[in-house]
Amino acid sequence: MKKIFGNAVVGQSGGPTAAINATLAGVVRGVLDNGKTIAKLYGMKNGIEGLLQEDLIDLSAFFAGSAEKLCILEQTPAAALGSCRLKLPKPQDDAAFYERLIAIFKKYDIRFFFYIGGNDSMDTVAKLTAYLETSDYEMKVMGIPKTIDNDLLGTDHTPGYGSAAKYIAVTMQEVLRDCAVYRIPAVTIVELMGRDAGWLTAASAVGRITGGMEPDYVYLPECVFDLDKFLSDVKSALARHPNVVVAVSEGVCFANGRYVGEGSQSGATDKFGHAYLAGVGKVLECAIRESIGCKVRSLELSLPQRCAAHLASDTDLTESAGVGKAAVLAACSGVSGEVMAIARASGEQYIVSYEHHPASSIANGVRKVDPEFCVPEGNNVTDSFCRWLLPLIQGEREMQYQNGLPVHLTF
Amino acid sequence: MKKIFGNAVVGQSGGPTAAINATLAGVVRGVLDNGKTIAKLYGMKNGIEGLLQEDLIDLSAFFAGSAEKLCILEQTPAAALGSCRLKLPKPQDDAAFYERLIAIFKKYDIRFFFYIGGNDSMDTVAKLTAYLETSDYEMKVMGIPKTIDNDLLGTDHTPGYGSAAKYIAVTMQEVLRDCAVYRIPAVTIVELMGRDAGWLTAASAVGRITGGMEPDYVYLPECVFDLDKFLSDVKSALARHPNVVVAVSEGVCFANGRYVGEGSQSGATDKFGHAYLAGVGKVLECAIRESIGCKVRSLELSLPQRCAAHLASDTDLTESAGVGKAAVLAACSGVSGEVMAIARASGEQYIVSYEHHPASSIANGVRKVDPEFCVPEGNNVTDSFCRWLLPLIQGEREMQYQNGLPVHLTF
Repeated sequence: MKKIFGNAVVGQSGGPTAAINATLAGVVRGVLDNGKTIAKLYGMKNGIEGLLQEDLIDLSAFFAGSAEKLCILEQTPAAALGSCRLKLPKPQDDAAFYERLIAIFKKYDIRFFFYIGGNDSMDTVAKLTAYLETSDYEMKVMGIPKTIDNDLLGTDHTPGYGSAAKYIAVTMQEVLRDCAVYRIPAVTIVELMGRDAGWLTAASAVGRITGGMEPDYVYLPECVFDLDKFLSDVKSALARHPNVVVAVSEGVCFANGRYVGEGSQSGATDKFGHAYLAGVGKVLECAIRESIGCKVRSLELSLPQRCAAHLASDTDLTESAGVGKAAVLAACSGVSGEVMAIARASGEQYIVSYEHHPASSIANGVRKVDPEFCVPEGNNVTDSFCRWLLPLIQGEREMQYQNGLPVHLTF
Repeated sequence: MKKIFGNAVVGQSGGPTAAINATLAGVVRGVLDNGKTIAKLYGMKNGIEGLLQEDLIDLSAFFAGSAEKLCILEQTPAAALGSCRLKLPKPQDDAAFYERLIAIFKKYDIRFFFYIGGNDSMDTVAKLTAYLETSDYEMKVMGIPKTIDNDLLGTDHTPGYGSAAKYIAVTMQEVLRDCAVYRIPAVTIVELMGRDAGWLTAASAVGRITGGMEPDYVYLPECVFDLDKFLSDVKSALARHPNVVVAVSEGVCFANGRYVGEGSQSGATDKFGHAYLAGVGKVLECAIRESIGCKVRSLELSLPQRCAAHLASDTDLTESAGVGKAAVLAACSGVSGEVMAIARASGEQYIVSYEHHPASSIANGVRKVDPEFCVPEGNNVTDSFCRWLLPLIQGEREMQYQNGLPVHLTF
């Protein structure tokens, strides 16, 4: 692996998380620590979109000598550099697009490219890497994963997931307390994010192993959803106690593959062709009202799942920063075309290390919840899942507040 | 005012808040400090409903010598004793109901009655007081307000409001950051609680005076909602920047008095005859999609507004406990039939004191947002509102966590 010298650029892409800026802080620290290899770090505003417009920030200057600013960056939710959802063309379809990029890299002597994002962003890393193999421009390209969905391949878990899981786990404890105050039979349906994988919804159950409360049932996209079975589950829970709470993923599907929430939506899709989903909670609320007739309500935890930085997991923030810094170290030592990952050591103690895998093997795959984490009945997660999750939500960072509100960083 | 001696009972009623247990802790502390007047404190499970079934807990024994337990109680959301929504009959309509209550009071030598609740609970206090005036049973009855809605008369603000407002203010900052990451024109509608008064929705704007962000517009039930004006507001905001965020109260009404969200609901009412509301966000989302056609989404902050104890305002918790303790002191000194209130001293410095007013003057009234807190255009709040609110959301209590989740108390 040949070592090179020059400037670096970092961008953020895809949906925000509470920890994506911790990764950015990790990249900044990595660059500041490797001044012999990387002279200057640029930040692209709004990912590749901003890079194409040369909308760049000199992050080396911005953060020079200010550890304080980096701490504030770490506690700021959503992509501080801005994000985009630009899907790159295939190199063989649009070489001119890549030539434009290379011209910009040359202009700023950018020899290191760090892209923090989810599945679609790792596709950007894979395509840029593929193009560079056909070009004589030498650049190291590293993908650094972030997604609250935890659905990336090749990593024990994704940076950003632990904080989202902690928000869900804590909020579910609070909602369960709220629901427990009345004696009137009532069903509360909590709809959680997770289009293709149930990792977020599964997090709602973790109170079970900590002496807390847990929802009666948990429905993940990994298990076929059967409406009759669901109503029978709810009835049996109502027979046990008056306050029934179920957690359900937005992505649950019937046996025919149709989303349960699909009936309530327009069938619109986003730029990547993902079906636009919302409303499984409302669909199930109506079904319970019609067939059981008890008090019922549904709620979505919605955007705070991905941006509630005030409740970030300290473990997640530490790892998110760690993986960013490790990406810089890897690139400086000559690695390219790889995506960072978190490896967990086997054994009782929670120990992680940072590694990397070829972007081409990661991009566009979806990691589902492991089958052994779902109960055979398909209506809950196992204790083994809760034990797997628990280390990821550990620790509360002491956040800086001013005037009663958390301090956030803006560029 | 004649002083009496005996036992006390405390209950919680109405919707939960993040601070209702801090008030319970204040009552416990007040009783423990006044052992010469009050021998024992009972807790009614599920308010008056539990009292009628003699479902009582000996709180004096439970908390004896455990300051730790009281701290955990203070950070536990939702009514730890359980709640109810039992509306008491009028004394003249059902004397037998009150005779049953008096028999239970006599059986347990209960001479002090503390009821922590919202508007409907203060109605309970007023009715019980009215009945006692016709009875020879001597008992001191005190109402202690709690409601996230801040819509009680006679108090500068209600215990519980500050924490809900802090949750909304912090979450709005995070949502605004989240919405700011893309360059694509998009409208985000955040629907907030508040059936009759806009205090909660108004809290979304406070970032304006703290150097934070603020929604483009804020719509309260106090101002007539005009759909054309709303769409024109949104269009003018989109002309200024791509990421438009508006906050809207669930209770906004058209000029004809109909709820904007009404079209999407069944018209069902709750036990107190309040219209069941939800869905103004979805109604406005559809209106924007149809008439403007840009990307649009709506979200409800939902139950966490009233149960997110992990983000409680330290000021609110302190005052909520303080007002509970002050209620005990007042009752021990002979006061009865009154509802506690928080008075704010005039002047720049934030100083509060606890006072009390006759329950009959408080119950069933609704305190709207002051007209001078709304801009003349009816689509935002004034800076003076933000300055009024700011002291109430100050301070973050160091919460006890275990295994990554906040510790909660259960009886």
